[in-house]
Amino acid sequence: MDALGYYNGKWGPLDDMTVPMNDRGCYFGDGVYDAASSANGVIFTLDEHVERFFNSAKLLEIELSYSREELKKTLNEMLSKVDKGEYIVYWQATRGTGRRVHAFSTGPSNLWIIIKTIKIPDLYKKTKLITMEDTRFLLCNIKTLNLIPNVIAAQRAHEAGCLETVFHRGDIVTECSHSNVHIIKDGKFITHPTNNLILRGIARSHLVQVCMRLGIPVDERQFTLKELFDADEVMTSSTTTLGLSADTIDGKSVGGKAPELLKRIQDEAMREFTEVTGYKFPNGPAGS
Amino acid sequence: MDALGYYNGKWGPLDDMTVPMNDRGCYFGDGVYDAASSANGVIFTLDEHVERFFNSAKLLEIELSYSREELKKTLNEMLSKVDKGEYIVYWQATRGTGRRVHAFSTGPSNLWIIIKTIKIPDLYKKTKLITMEDTRFLLCNIKTLNLIPNVIAAQRAHEAGCLETVFHRGDIVTECSHSNVHIIKDGKFITHPTNNLILRGIARSHLVQVCMRLGIPVDERQFTLKELFDADEVMTSSTTTLGLSADTIDGKSVGGKAPELLKRIQDEAMREFTEVTGYKFPNGPAGS
Repeated sequence: MDALGYYNGKWGPLDDMTVPMNDRGCYFGDGVYDAASSANGVIFTLDEHVERFFNSAKLLEIELSYSREELKKTLNEMLSKVDKGEYIVYWQATRGTGRRVHAFSTGPSNLWIIIKTIKIPDLYKKTKLITMEDTRFLLCNIKTLNLIPNVIAAQRAHEAGCLETVFHRGDIVTECSHSNVHIIKDGKFITHPTNNLILRGIARSHLVQVCMRLGIPVDERQFTLKELFDADEVMTSSTTTLGLSADTIDGKSVGGKAPELLKRIQDEAMREFTEVTGYKFPNGPAGS
Repeated sequence: MDALGYYNGKWGPLDDMTVPMNDRGCYFGDGVYDAASSANGVIFTLDEHVERFFNSAKLLEIELSYSREELKKTLNEMLSKVDKGEYIVYWQATRGTGRRVHAFSTGPSNLWIIIKTIKIPDLYKKTKLITMEDTRFLLCNIKTLNLIPNVIAAQRAHEAGCLETVFHRGDIVTECSHSNVHIIKDGKFITHPTNNLILRGIARSHLVQVCMRLGIPVDERQFTLKELFDADEVMTSSTTTLGLSADTIDGKSVGGKAPELLKRIQDEAMREFTEVTGYKFPNGPAGS
């Protein structure tokens, strides 16, 4: 089985799974999610993803009827049922099941799990980005199922043959449709502070920690579109990509001015992933 | 049967219906909807709701594989299968079915229908409201399934024993969690203009038309929280409520200063609903 679906204790091949039409996820997007990548049956940074998931649920007042340990056990159990390889382990909690009424339902929340194969990218390969005005709601710190603006932005990137769309609110760069975005400038790693305008990415946190380990100064502050285009390097990060760098944005050349610093960061990110999961990056550094 | 569910041609009792876990509505809220009220098997203002639905789908680039006439036929056919009474006829289109990837799926969109009983309220009964900062995205003109801020706002109203929450962006009143909001002041009907900050409510449009028929001046302009609290009357409108008036907001007394004008508007709204559906309002005016 290359893709598994799970819903409140029932599981099977993903494409065969069904859920109740009355699940509040179906008509309000009333839920939160998280996702982590895995290789060789090991889920990378699972504790951090589970912690963030519980925090998202708390912020949306969704009650979870299981502990962090029970959730981790279920996720690992489901992962053990698929073939060997690299997977994204995705899970979501919807508020409950009931006939459509805006005010909260009273029943227990529902647990959904989706496990499907991923291709871990070559981190040294350059990516292309586009930009778009950020019209999202002001709850971007919560990992919710309300993702239409992200879907539209990702589609625009796809149509342009690009990896991602960089959102900006006016002149301020926030994040991408499903990644965070960072710049390197004058030897510093600069990234948007964690407030309600961006998701606190786990891969983002790890890049910050990698920089700290390597003695690279980190500046968590807002930066402008002009700074993005003028940066020495432009990076994006997400659960499945760890930390990629871009060479064009909106068709204009960017970055490429601090390749050694960039490589030190990426090599350390790969080493960490390999150390935990045993996954060998085909073109990675020694030890990864 | 008091509640019916329909999904891509299959239908049955709502609470028994299931949908594929891979429907993009389930994990992105990637869809649009509309809903109309019905009585005696007649759906009120169906053409207008269907037109708005097609417009929502177009704005989100969701392709519908049926015509307006085919959709209306299906909705009426499903309505004929439930018991006699008053119903909300709700339908949504999700972008398609496939494994979770942000960029658009290529398959056909999915049609969901939910039909369930409603209680048409006594329009003369006063309601209570609360207020909340509007943190929603800037696509509020599209009737999407991304409704978490609306759910939270409705829950706050429910907890406060109120009908609705009035959203405001800073000082400007926009709309409610699932209604529009209007004020009457110095003989004028004042309501937020239709832009991307509010949904173009069908009931709102009908109240505007009612005012025009009655010779009441209409001012489609933004108004402030102060104007809301100082209004002669405060009204909310939605598909199921047509046009109600409030007597408190955040626990403070409001409105009650133009009862005759208010009654003329409500009586005309009721007469129109009765004329189309044959529904008799228990406390309504003559002819309704």
